[in-house]
Amino acid sequence: MEKLNVAVIGCGYWGPNLIRNFEQIPKCNMKMCCDLLENNLKRMKNLYPNIKITQSAETILNDPSIDAVVIATPVFTHFDLAKQCLEYHKHVLIEKPMASSSEQCIELINLAEKYKRRLMVGHTFEYTAAVNKAKEIIESGELGEIYYISSVRVNLGLFQPDINVIWDLAPHDISIILYLLDDFPATISAQGKAHFKENIEDVATTTLNFANSTIAFLHNSWLDPDKIRRTTIVGSKKMLVYDDINTNEKIKIYNKGVKVPPYYDTYAEFHFSYRYGDIYSPRIQEYEPLRKECEHFLECIKEGKSPKSDGYSGLRVVSILEAANKSIRNRGTQQRIRNQMYSLCHKVA
Amino acid sequence: MEKLNVAVIGCGYWGPNLIRNFEQIPKCNMKMCCDLLENNLKRMKNLYPNIKITQSAETILNDPSIDAVVIATPVFTHFDLAKQCLEYHKHVLIEKPMASSSEQCIELINLAEKYKRRLMVGHTFEYTAAVNKAKEIIESGELGEIYYISSVRVNLGLFQPDINVIWDLAPHDISIILYLLDDFPATISAQGKAHFKENIEDVATTTLNFANSTIAFLHNSWLDPDKIRRTTIVGSKKMLVYDDINTNEKIKIYNKGVKVPPYYDTYAEFHFSYRYGDIYSPRIQEYEPLRKECEHFLECIKEGKSPKSDGYSGLRVVSILEAANKSIRNRGTQQRIRNQMYSLCHKVA
Amino acid sequence: MEKLNVAVIGCGYWGPNLIRNFEQIPKCNMKMCCDLLENNLKRMKNLYPNIKITQSAETILNDPSIDAVVIATPVFTHFDLAKQCLEYHKHVLIEKPMASSSEQCIELINLAEKYKRRLMVGHTFEYTAAVNKAKEIIESGELGEIYYISSVRVNLGLFQPDINVIWDLAPHDISIILYLLDDFPATISAQGKAHFKENIEDVATTTLNFANSTIAFLHNSWLDPDKIRRTTIVGSKKMLVYDDINTNEKIKIYNKGVKVPPYYDTYAEFHFSYRYGDIYSPRIQEYEPLRKECEHFLECIKEGKSPKSDGYSGLRVVSILEAANKSIRNRGTQQRIRNQMYSLCHKVA
Amino acid sequence: MEKLNVAVIGCGYWGPNLIRNFEQIPKCNMKMCCDLLENNLKRMKNLYPNIKITQSAETILNDPSIDAVVIATPVFTHFDLAKQCLEYHKHVLIEKPMASSSEQCIELINLAEKYKRRLMVGHTFEYTAAVNKAKEIIESGELGEIYYISSVRVNLGLFQPDINVIWDLAPHDISIILYLLDDFPATISAQGKAHFKENIEDVATTTLNFANSTIAFLHNSWLDPDKIRRTTIVGSKKMLVYDDINTNEKIKIYNKGVKVPPYYDTYAEFHFSYRYGDIYSPRIQEYEPLRKECEHFLECIKEGKSPKSDGYSGLRVVSILEAANKSIRNRGTQQRIRNQMYSLCHKVA
Repeated sequence: MEKLNVAVIGCGYWGPNLIRNFEQIPKCNMKMCCDLLENNLKRMKNLYPNIKITQSAETILNDPSIDAVVIATPVFTHFDLAKQCLEYHKHVLIEKPMASSSEQCIELINLAEKYKRRLMVGHTFEYTAAVNKAKEIIESGELGEIYYISSVRVNLGLFQPDINVIWDLAPHDISIILYLLDDFPATISAQGKAHFKENIEDVATTTLNFANSTIAFLHNSWLDPDKIRRTTIVGSKKMLVYDDINTNEKIKIYNKGVKVPPYYDTYAEFHFSYRYGDIYSPRIQEYEPLRKECEHFLECIKEGKSPKSDGYSGLRVVSILEAANKSIRNRGTQQRIRNQMYSLCHKVA
Repeated sequence: MEKLNVAVIGCGYWGPNLIRNFEQIPKCNMKMCCDLLENNLKRMKNLYPNIKITQSAETILNDPSIDAVVIATPVFTHFDLAKQCLEYHKHVLIEKPMASSSEQCIELINLAEKYKRRLMVGHTFEYTAAVNKAKEIIESGELGEIYYISSVRVNLGLFQPDINVIWDLAPHDISIILYLLDDFPATISAQGKAHFKENIEDVATTTLNFANSTIAFLHNSWLDPDKIRRTTIVGSKKMLVYDDINTNEKIKIYNKGVKVPPYYDTYAEFHFSYRYGDIYSPRIQEYEPLRKECEHFLECIKEGKSPKSDGYSGLRVVSILEAANKSIRNRGTQQRIRNQMYSLCHKVA
Repeated sequence: MEKLNVAVIGCGYWGPNLIRNFEQIPKCNMKMCCDLLENNLKRMKNLYPNIKITQSAETILNDPSIDAVVIATPVFTHFDLAKQCLEYHKHVLIEKPMASSSEQCIELINLAEKYKRRLMVGHTFEYTAAVNKAKEIIESGELGEIYYISSVRVNLGLFQPDINVIWDLAPHDISIILYLLDDFPATISAQGKAHFKENIEDVATTTLNFANSTIAFLHNSWLDPDKIRRTTIVGSKKMLVYDDINTNEKIKIYNKGVKVPPYYDTYAEFHFSYRYGDIYSPRIQEYEPLRKECEHFLECIKEGKSPKSDGYSGLRVVSILEAANKSIRNRGTQQRIRNQMYSLCHKVA
Repeated sequence: MEKLNVAVIGCGYWGPNLIRNFEQIPKCNMKMCCDLLENNLKRMKNLYPNIKITQSAETILNDPSIDAVVIATPVFTHFDLAKQCLEYHKHVLIEKPMASSSEQCIELINLAEKYKRRLMVGHTFEYTAAVNKAKEIIESGELGEIYYISSVRVNLGLFQPDINVIWDLAPHDISIILYLLDDFPATISAQGKAHFKENIEDVATTTLNFANSTIAFLHNSWLDPDKIRRTTIVGSKKMLVYDDINTNEKIKIYNKGVKVPPYYDTYAEFHFSYRYGDIYSPRIQEYEPLRKECEHFLECIKEGKSPKSDGYSGLRVVSILEAANKSIRNRGTQQRIRNQMYSLCHKVA
């Protein structure tokens, strides 16, 4: 089979990582990259002398040899770029979050179906060894029923000029949680504060209420002195902590839990019983998840199959981000995602 | 001066710690303790043979030699017991939270003023070396303007049968935050979930919005595999982390921050500048905070002065707990504390 | 059966812990305590009003009702006190290290046998849950052959005026290692330095070479900024780390190891293969080990059986301390323990 | 000035890092690389298409355009390769340890002087920000007199087939310690054990005694479950811990110490006083130390100046490794470095 020709739009912060990975995959040809800034392009040309560079996305669109386009530009440009790519019959991989609104996501999904192109979103964490290990453990039933997930993703830095900290950091947490639970929340609420630029919250907390008893709490900040990436999953049987900073024990399973007593007569007699048990940390065989993501994109194109993090997956994440923003603007009130959207999101979860 | 005679009601979980401390303070006489369960009383008698024991609170009320009563019983009993004590002209120290409602708190405040008795609430953390060190640092202006506080207090265990995790754990976080900021929030919101007993949330997140730009996030759980007690205070100049579990470096000050650029022309030019600097951990001279709290109570009685954590302080905490509960029952909507209450709470903050 | 009457000599640093434990054991009578300093005695009398106090050890010796004496005085007094106690037909528990020389240990062993009294040494760590868990794991063969043990016990403080840091801290490491391995080293060597008082080394490293391929390294210091208590046990199959400071995961078992390749032809082809695997931390049910030690002492007296940490155990530790000191004075040369002593120590290991 | 032409011999484990750095330095021309294994060469050619590759070192020696040769081969080949390079008038950078014996080091030093070539050893840690920060702090007198240094460098893996763990890992610790103290030890002793291959110790402890009261302890292992790189420096005024694994607080300064009391009358009165103080972690501005090392090599060539880690520095480290090995073979006895060698090593320290 012939090698697929790939182009990357956006060579700023994340684009170079995508370019490096497509360069290293033998079965594709990392052909062209595009950026508005000449300096970014020069840097790429220096590293990969064979790559073609352009400041105009149209060069890519008009090159019929290019099969697939990867979009790693600011969020507000995702929709226009992706739409054009699809209309030019390119397969598209978009960085997270997929677009600026759920309407845009739906339009892209429809276009991809119309033109029979692959549409994938760069939810990188769904391709990590640790998250897949956690999913395997949850699906085995080892943790029991999931009571709650608490996810903290904070650090100092990487403000975005156009999107708040929820749109910047929470897509990771949300895509992980939806992937782990294979479920979609019934309501979303959020609280946050913008200390530097109006309506660009730099710290926020988001709550996802699922229809069953599961609840998920997100805490995101651009202002924290420590870098924390920690997801705690509390189940009725066991508990799991996924700490992405810990290089030796990324996942720990705690054989701990609570037992409800069958009944109790008096106030004084009341007490739950707690089970404190062993702690176990399975060996995680590490690899670069972005490489896996890029390979998956190419494989889906070649085999005509739907990507794991497809357009619906992107839509689900954006719907939640949208609802979180709406909640922040409405004094933290829980938001229901509109019926039609919900069924769209939920059906495919 | 004569020794004050002290009685303690409630010898279950926390009472014995109070009894031990009053026993060890030379300037008072730990005279009597009361509990409904004979076993609890026997245990106390064994440890302190000179102590008198009783199963009836009336014995204490009717003993005119008893100057002060410490109430360490379940929350729903606080009001009735404290009210009687005040009516019998005893000084009162109540465990946190002060009572089951802000109305009860106000009634107790009024009774104490009427009978000229000291009324104090056991906000123990206001008496710790670490919290006072943090307060000193904040008040010196070293951190600059406070952007946000994030406080995590989670562990496995200690379910309460009658109050949810916010009423059980958050009084610590709230009393610390109000004490540190010397301020009272304008609105409160909360989200939580009860997995074991209806309306007894076992995990929750609470947000306090202050009138200035400060926001505080609380995360409380009875179901977490790890014990975490960590308060992060982010200021415009520096950041402070107070980790109560870390025995060697309870407080760390990070000389880190963000500088907003004066202006930027294009999207591509935009970036805040981050300052990464030294980390400093001041030596904290440890002592048992409960001892300090007990001594402060006795001192306030002797000198007729108002305790640091007085009835108003207890009222402020209970008002926030009340509002948090109301928010949970109202889909997370922000709650304003009623005008009259707010001025009562805020005036004295 | 009647309650045993216990006396404790030495109420300074460690004695009060022994007194507290014997006080709390229902089956014995903590009758008398002795110290040269009146203040120490007063403090005990205050805490335990029923206890008798004396400044003269003779009072204890001459009281025929006292069955057992616990010696918690400076090391240089252990031998004389223990000898007298045995001659007065008391059972004896001596704090570690047992005595100032192996000759003294042997004489005490002989006296105890002559008078048919129990002689026990306070190797407290042999009574901890963690050390016994580690021993159980080693004896199950899970770790395979033991390659080496590395034990670090350092902190700032607790200088002794008459013994060096090896005699002060290493008895813990040595008693743990001998207990875990059930073996006695063939040679001992040590290096150290005295920065404050001549011949009182404040930092040292000690090496124990066993007859099989096992080697143990000890590092002890009174001058380290951090408190570290960490024993690493490397086996041919798995590795175990016992970290006494870590409250949640005192013991971790690493399923890691090295495989030697069957052969290799060229230098370039050479490489061992490493196995990196899961990490597992068994739940340790904590208790106060000193309580267990005290109960064991009483039980051995009542049942006439030999204590786990008997005189021979004390002798083995002291022989190694003696050899370590000799090595330090001889430029670090390995010391063999004299033949007669070795057979005495080894036979009973 | 013209660009220097650089060749690298050895493209196995460490060589590629050297090649990458010389490639990225604009002021030199990374011209040729050499390895016995074709696969290693192919990998380099793939990454750097402009590089010349050869399986024969003679190609490099005979190319008069090559100014400098970097030797990153197994230790036993260092001497022959470096000798030839110098005889062919090349400047030489040798990976640590410099050679297999101190005699070889001296011969290379003499050859470099004879041919007026730069001779440098790759003691990379002398070029790290953290070690230079520690040196600056020590030299400012902030720590006071240095009592001891304890350096732990252990991990699982990277066995060498021809040298033991001391020759593999301790060169880092030794070069750091000599650099920090600007001193050379009077005696060396070591203990170790070979569990896999005769005389190839896989775990060892080494002690360096300096003429003043400073003593240094090294612990090295290829078999430890954890990766530890931790150097503790205890001074009379303060203490410093350099933990190379800790990304946020590589260096911590503890304002702790011991005060000797002027005198004490009785045993019971004795106690040193300990000072427990603040902990401070200066911000370390990170960079790749190897880049700095490579640039320093080129700069020394261009300016004809002696490198920081010159041949004498390499000789000092090798002399200590030699003495450590001799001590292991002589039951741990302290080794003095031969008089002539000592003066050679010490004069230049």
